[in-house]
Formats: sequence, structure tokens, C-alpha cells
Amino acid sequence: MTITSTTLITPQIIEFPHPITLQNGSTLPSYQLIIETYGELNESKSNAVLICHALSGNHHAAGRHHPNDKYAGWWDNMIGAGKPIDTNKFHVIVLNNLGGCAGSTGATSINPATGEPYGADFPLVTVRDWVNTQAQLADHFGIEQWAAVVGGSLGGMQALQWTIDYPGRVRHALVIASAPKLSTQNIAFNDVARQAIITDPDFHGGNYAQHHTKPRRGLRTARMMGHITYLAEHGLGNKFGRQLRNEHYNYNYDIDFEVESYLRHQGDKFAETFDANTYLLMTKALDYFDPAAEYNDNLQAALQHTQAHYFIASFSTDWRFSPERSRELVRALIAARKNVQYVEVPSQHGHDAFLLDDPQYHNAVRAYMNNISV
Amino acid sequence: MTITSTTLITPQIIEFPHPITLQNGSTLPSYQLIIETYGELNESKSNAVLICHALSGNHHAAGRHHPNDKYAGWWDNMIGAGKPIDTNKFHVIVLNNLGGCAGSTGATSINPATGEPYGADFPLVTVRDWVNTQAQLADHFGIEQWAAVVGGSLGGMQALQWTIDYPGRVRHALVIASAPKLSTQNIAFNDVARQAIITDPDFHGGNYAQHHTKPRRGLRTARMMGHITYLAEHGLGNKFGRQLRNEHYNYNYDIDFEVESYLRHQGDKFAETFDANTYLLMTKALDYFDPAAEYNDNLQAALQHTQAHYFIASFSTDWRFSPERSRELVRALIAARKNVQYVEVPSQHGHDAFLLDDPQYHNAVRAYMNNISV
Repeated sequence: MTITSTTLITPQIIEFPHPITLQNGSTLPSYQLIIETYGELNESKSNAVLICHALSGNHHAAGRHHPNDKYAGWWDNMIGAGKPIDTNKFHVIVLNNLGGCAGSTGATSINPATGEPYGADFPLVTVRDWVNTQAQLADHFGIEQWAAVVGGSLGGMQALQWTIDYPGRVRHALVIASAPKLSTQNIAFNDVARQAIITDPDFHGGNYAQHHTKPRRGLRTARMMGHITYLAEHGLGNKFGRQLRNEHYNYNYDIDFEVESYLRHQGDKFAETFDANTYLLMTKALDYFDPAAEYNDNLQAALQHTQAHYFIASFSTDWRFSPERSRELVRALIAARKNVQYVEVPSQHGHDAFLLDDPQYHNAVRAYMNNISV
Repeated sequence: MTITSTTLITPQIIEFPHPITLQNGSTLPSYQLIIETYGELNESKSNAVLICHALSGNHHAAGRHHPNDKYAGWWDNMIGAGKPIDTNKFHVIVLNNLGGCAGSTGATSINPATGEPYGADFPLVTVRDWVNTQAQLADHFGIEQWAAVVGGSLGGMQALQWTIDYPGRVRHALVIASAPKLSTQNIAFNDVARQAIITDPDFHGGNYAQHHTKPRRGLRTARMMGHITYLAEHGLGNKFGRQLRNEHYNYNYDIDFEVESYLRHQGDKFAETFDANTYLLMTKALDYFDPAAEYNDNLQAALQHTQAHYFIASFSTDWRFSPERSRELVRALIAARKNVQYVEVPSQHGHDAFLLDDPQYHNAVRAYMNNISV
């Protein structure tokens, strides 16, 4: 089937009925993952591509669920027939990660032990845990080896972890707008976001569902702040400048500047639709990711046993995951004598650039994906 | 009297009993300013220097109030005998601005019309209003012309506004780590801070004093976020890195990383000691400052009638008020054929650098101040 932006896609739920032990030592008795697939799996199952999502992403990356959906999936410009990740060649699988809130088992799911939503009791999962569950997903489909694992930001961390934990099971890793670990500043921003949520009186220690409420204020603040940091100063300036809503200043705390309106709207929308415990969990997965840590902070050593080929991309104005963080990874890969291609894309869109349709970026991904043998 | 870090300083309160009309059209029936002075005013009153404070600053810039004070004033490394702003030469006046919460009339003061704290009823004052009240302060002391007006960040905006509004009353303006107007990103960060405070249930529309509470959560979040943006990524990284509090991750939302502990502590301290309405007001004064706006966004035109000499300084890693924002001001001053000196100081301390003791920075200020004739 040809996959386009208007192709109707039906998600699938895959049940994993056996217990899984997580990196933090806790065990989930069972779990489910919600996924979407685009394109056909070939007979030798050599054309499967796994897409890993970032902080607030999910399994719906391409096409539409309903004919009148306003938007296509979150990476629809990247995935589809004739697109950089070409579904005429590849069988693409996208999942909502364990701990997500879009249909996979997570904090909003019912805890079989209590009959209530897990809420605060859902364990903190890590990038490594995600890779393990994604390996179980591959097993489910009889996929021995991914042609490629692809992700941006937190998704790129998963692609990188795949090559470390399952070196024989991934031929190519595309690590986009990512980093081998968060910077101090990134961790600091994440903690402010978490504190905004946790100190919201409607958070109720994470068990807000039982109180029939949501920590909307905290989540809104967290998202507004996050949103600024995903954009570049220049991009934000070009879009909004100091444009006023009214002719004169209000001299109160109503909306003076258009950028305020935009941010508050983004925050409100997110606070209604996203789960706060999931947001907390995702930020912790980011903070904890540090594959070099168990190799005395030697990234080259962490990468020594990998077998994949790497495609690394960064964006010039991305200051959350700056080009220097990607170069750090590239240098370690070269030192470890791995096969790596690196592209630094000029962009005014900051970290968000990895989601946007930029010709230079897309052509680089397209060329790399075209050269993968299946 | 020789002013050192241990000199005991007594603030003074100056009453201004006449009504003042503010830029937003409202009138205050009277107001008071709390000030400190260091050094002697000479007979011709030609050696007076005004120091303007930034977002959370106050009148206590040098020396101590009590022998056992843990810290000296906020700019004690800059102001004193033999220091860059030498109190053996200059008579330095520092005030808490109108709308502040350290003793000048502001939101925490009693509104004579109601007998209750002004709270949300305190009018939003602007940089121009501050300069007008500072001119009344100069009149009070019979100071016809400042030898210099000096400020960093929001304080630098006041120094710049002085040269525009009272060109004959200021010989030198030292505009440090500042900008001729905020960027879109700056405005955006300020609005997130305000929204965190305003949506705190303890804010009570700004009248939290009547409810015997404070919006501590919102103010804490605002300060934590602000604090990150005042520091440079490298400075924060060098100080804390990914240093953990315990040997292993907690897998919960307690403090994992030392930077979290630091930020939460800074936020808690600030939320106890600073007034939320004042914080809101100060961020709005920042947002509204834009002297070029009434000259069709032509900064050169806004500066055409100034008479002061300018000293402009910026810091390499300051991303809230980046060197480019200072260069923009320098270019406009040069185009307007004004006398300007510019220094761009290499620093790893971000915006906070203007408060710190850096030899290159201090020597530049010292040299400039030494050359001022009094």
C-alpha cells in the first residue's frame, strides 16, 4: 500500500504477557505497546526500520487516523512513499514507548494490582528499558535485525543505545539532534519543569486521576518553558519579534506581545492533552541517559563493540542539543573506528528543526536511507 | 569615610510628598525611596554617581548593615575605596526603585487610599518612570548633573534612558550586560515566569497579603528558570557537571543531580524573601523598555540628542543579553556620532558575570571611571 499524508492508518496493540524487569530493579507483570506500521515487511524481514519518539511523541508518525484529521502524524514529512524514509522500500514501525500516555502501558494505565491508574506508582523507565521492550517488539514480528533505528532528540538516544545493547540487531542508526548525554543546563531545565508540575496542588503526589483533576498549571508552565528552549532565538524573533496584540501596552498582565499569546496557547493545549506523570518520566529518561557512565565516562569505550553504521545530524541553532554534542559523539565514533556520516544543517529553527521539512536535512536522510541495502 | 566591605552602612528613606504621574497615566499621591550613599559629595556636587539596580536588586550595594552580616552589598566588589567605582573619588548613591520591595514604595507598601498593601493595585512602573523618580532624587540632593549613571542588565537600561530623557544631567553612562530592548526570547521567558506566579493558587490575583500567604511555588519556579538563563551552559557545567548526590540514580523525583539541589535551594530562598508582585512588575519594566519605539524603531534617532559619553560592556557567554545586543547599541551610538567605549569581556559566567569580580571587566570600569573629571 502506498503511504501518503492522507492514507488512513490503524494503530495496533501488541500484548507482552510476560513480566519484564526494569533497570531500576522493579518488575512489570505484563505490558502492551501501541504501534503503527507503514510499508510492507519483505520476505527476509531485512527492510524493517524502527522509529523512536522523543519527549512528547507517540506511535502516530505518518498518515491520518480519520479523513478529517487536521494534521497528519508527527513525522509525516519524513516517512511515506517517496519520502526520505521511503515506505516503498522500508517497513517502518513506530511505537509509543513503555511509560507513554498514547496507548502503551504507562502511568495512565490501570495497575492490575490495584484496579486504579498506576499514577505515581508507575516505575521510572530508562532508554535501556525502552530498547529492551523494542527488542521484544522486534521478536514479536520475527525481525532479527533492524535495517535502521531512527530517532531525534530522546529518540536518537534510543537509536544510539540500540547499537550498544544489541550490536548484532541494528545495521544503521540515525541519531538526529541528540547527544550522548544531557548537559547540566538540560538537566536543570528538566528539573524546573518537574518542580513546576510536582508543586502544583492538583498534582496530588502523582495520583491526580483519583482526585479527578490534572496538574494543568504546572504542566502548562513546563511546556511553555520547554517550548522556548526548543526554538532558536532567531526563529522566535523572526516569527514574533516584539509584535504587540494591541496598539499600546496594557500595563497589566494580559497579553501584550503576540509571543505571549502563542506560548500560553501551546501550554494550554499541552496541559489538556498530555499526561503529567508521563512528562516527568520522559524528562527523567533524558536525564539518566549516559551510556559512557559505566565505562568510566569514556564514550569511545562504550561504543567499541557496536557494529552499526551511523548517521548523525545536528542543527546550527539547536541550543538544547547543540552541534557540539553531536560532534562529541562523532569524534568518539571515529576514535572507535566506526563508520559514521555527520551532517550539520544550517537552520533557524533550533531543536524543533528535526521535525521540520528542511531540504538539506531531508536530502541527507534520503541519501543515507537510499544507500541501505535490504 | 573610607568605604570597605565591612563598613557599616545605614540606609536612608527620602520622602517625596507630591503626586507623580506615571507613564501608564496613573498617579501616585506620594512615594518614598530607600537609598544608601557611599563616599562624600564634593562642594560643587560634580562627583555624584547613581547606581541603578536590576530585576531583584536593591539599595544595599556595598558594605554591611550589621557587623555579623554574612554578605556585603550586591555590588561590593565594584563600589568602595580603591574599587572600580572608587568612593574616595565619587559620591555613590544607590536606591531601591519605585515599585521595589526593599523599602521604597511598592506593592508591599500600604496604599493610603485603602489602608491595605497595594498588592495588585500598585501601578506598573517603567524604566522612564524610574528615571523620573531618580531625577527627583537628584533634585532632593541638589545634584544638577550626575558624573555617571551606572547599571547592569535592567540597570543599564535605566542608565541609557537617563541619557535620552535628561541629556544635560548625565555626563557618563555605563551600560553593562544590557540591551536597547528585550529580544522575543527574553519576553517569552519573562511571560513563563509571570504565568507560573499568576497561576499559583496562592497568588489570589496579586492580593496574597490579605490572604496571609505568598505564591511561593510560582515564584520558586520563576526564579529557578531565571537562574538557569542568567548562567552560561559552560559555567553551570563546570560547576556541577552531572555530579550525583548519591552513588546511584534514585529512580524517583528526589534530588539526583547536584544542580537540582542548587537550583531548588535558590528558588526556595528567593520565594521566601522576594515579593511576587514586585517580580512581575520588574519583568514588565524589562519587556516594555524600547526607547527606539517612539522613533519608528530607529535607535540612532532615539540617541541623537544625547550628550553623555558611553561605556558599554558585554560578556561573551551572556545569552540573555548577548554581546550582539550591546554591539547593536554601540553601532547606533557610533552612527549618531557619540562618544562610546565598548568592551566585550571573555567570561564563562553568562549574564551573572556583571556582578562578579573579573579583572578584565573591573579594570575596564576602573580605567573609565578614573578618567572622569569631577
